[in-house]
Amino acid sequence: MANVQDVAKKAGVGVGTVSRVISGKGYVSEEKRKLVQAAIEELGYQPNELARNLLHNRTNIIAIIVPSVANAFYSTLVYYIEIELRKYGYKTMLCDTVGEKTNEQVFLEMLDRSMVDGVLTASHTQEHSVYKKLKKAVVSFDTPQLADGIPVITVDHVKGGRMAAEALIASDCREVLQFVDESDEDYPFIRRHREFRRVIEQAGIICHDYVLKWNEFGRDYAKFVAKDALEKYPQVDGVFSTDDHALDYMNEVRYLGKRIPEDVRVVAYDGAYILDGAYPPVSVVVQPIEEIALAGVNTLLKMIQENQPVADWIQLDVAYRGGQTTL
Amino acid sequence: MANVQDVAKKAGVGVGTVSRVISGKGYVSEEKRKLVQAAIEELGYQPNELARNLLHNRTNIIAIIVPSVANAFYSTLVYYIEIELRKYGYKTMLCDTVGEKTNEQVFLEMLDRSMVDGVLTASHTQEHSVYKKLKKAVVSFDTPQLADGIPVITVDHVKGGRMAAEALIASDCREVLQFVDESDEDYPFIRRHREFRRVIEQAGIICHDYVLKWNEFGRDYAKFVAKDALEKYPQVDGVFSTDDHALDYMNEVRYLGKRIPEDVRVVAYDGAYILDGAYPPVSVVVQPIEEIALAGVNTLLKMIQENQPVADWIQLDVAYRGGQTTL
Repeated sequence: MANVQDVAKKAGVGVGTVSRVISGKGYVSEEKRKLVQAAIEELGYQPNELARNLLHNRTNIIAIIVPSVANAFYSTLVYYIEIELRKYGYKTMLCDTVGEKTNEQVFLEMLDRSMVDGVLTASHTQEHSVYKKLKKAVVSFDTPQLADGIPVITVDHVKGGRMAAEALIASDCREVLQFVDESDEDYPFIRRHREFRRVIEQAGIICHDYVLKWNEFGRDYAKFVAKDALEKYPQVDGVFSTDDHALDYMNEVRYLGKRIPEDVRVVAYDGAYILDGAYPPVSVVVQPIEEIALAGVNTLLKMIQENQPVADWIQLDVAYRGGQTTL
Repeated sequence: MANVQDVAKKAGVGVGTVSRVISGKGYVSEEKRKLVQAAIEELGYQPNELARNLLHNRTNIIAIIVPSVANAFYSTLVYYIEIELRKYGYKTMLCDTVGEKTNEQVFLEMLDRSMVDGVLTASHTQEHSVYKKLKKAVVSFDTPQLADGIPVITVDHVKGGRMAAEALIASDCREVLQFVDESDEDYPFIRRHREFRRVIEQAGIICHDYVLKWNEFGRDYAKFVAKDALEKYPQVDGVFSTDDHALDYMNEVRYLGKRIPEDVRVVAYDGAYILDGAYPPVSVVVQPIEEIALAGVNTLLKMIQENQPVADWIQLDVAYRGGQTTL
């Protein structure tokens, strides 16, 4: 396929002249314009959208970085982001870190070489330093503030932890277990764990923590964790966990012949579509995934298009949805 | 931020000269090279990866088109595709058609304007005509052959339909229901339905079809369908369906107080991660999602990088995984 060089050669003009004809910006003599247009037609040259955008230092591409798109929460987030970005003429470039720091670094370096106009990141690889050097507009989901000028979109995780605790207290639990992320207190979502424990213990209920590996989304690990937690804490009558671990735990409980909710009550966290097929319906603290996506996109586009000041911390609400895994 | 025009102006040379210095290709006098390098340094110009690639008519971006990434099957497909493409230095651009033909058309037109080096499509919007006009390398998943030179990656759906039928026959079913996609016999995955019916009827078992709306991935619709199917065919003792409809159907069955598998047996199709949290474990015909992704990527890259002839039809195997929803 012909490129801009071929057109320039054919027309006997410089590449810059061809660029000016294509973009319609800058002076080109009528004579040269005709030569360029004739060459474009003769060679079947397709004016290149990226080339045109690059003249204005824009690619109209936004990058989205997630720990794993093969996860109901993140795939739904990506789904809403892509639809929203498209409304504004942006394309979505996907990067899955698969839990690897090197993947995120390589990707971010690439971004800095002007491949994209901005970055939305939900990565948990804790690579904060690379974000400080990024020259792009960046908005992050549920991370600490990675650097000055990088707004954070999050939800009220403290309220979420409280709601979960209250649901298990109302279900007459005496000894409960929460699956907690290996502690990095800077991450907003970690805050639910402390509040959960505070409210549970205030009610005179025993609270155990099962500590999960950081940033590990594998299925085998989730199944191991469910078995291991039941071996270590066979006596608990209430469990608080993200969607996927909640489902695996419920399954293990039933293999052992225990009943839900009579013997063990469960409250999940996130409320992504992986719960939709669950039986019985799981009681859950729901994150508003679509609103999270829209807040991220709108904040980023404000930074890119309007160069406007934006809030550096946007906290959305959570909601409790009662199911049949609590009393 | 400075662009290539600014550098050219500062150095007192043409844009083409700057391009040649950046790309290291083509003749530039030593004097001009020094002027350009000084201007690049002074202006803090970042050599732009896209600009460099465009000189060779390459963007190193591959587009992936799916009906909905908020779906366990497609998000897993996208997951493996992105990881595999990255190994070869390609970035993944995501397009979710959300079931809309216009989304796919707009996206494909954009692709044709040289935004990407190739396209992987799993779309079911039946927009075959636009693919015929595409000048890009295209590989499709589980579609009819969209045009000459567009290879199809699929699985042995006839075998899949047969395996499902055999599992229900072995489970002593007398009257079964399959959820079938609104018929477009050209799509490979439709073939499982006919084979399922053939094998079921050969065994003297009654087979009903519940016809699903084409390309509809919404949750509300899935829940409606489960209820509706149970009202229309309350007497069936065996069901064959994709993962999501199988889970919703199982839930409705249990709300009605029926037991699985004693009263109703279920065989799912696809085996994506949405089944992982199901209780009891669902018997399922599994598609090899990772292998499907790798076959698509490898075929596309062969077309792009080596200009080699590739097979226009690659059919992978399926496997039956017995669970506790059959006898």
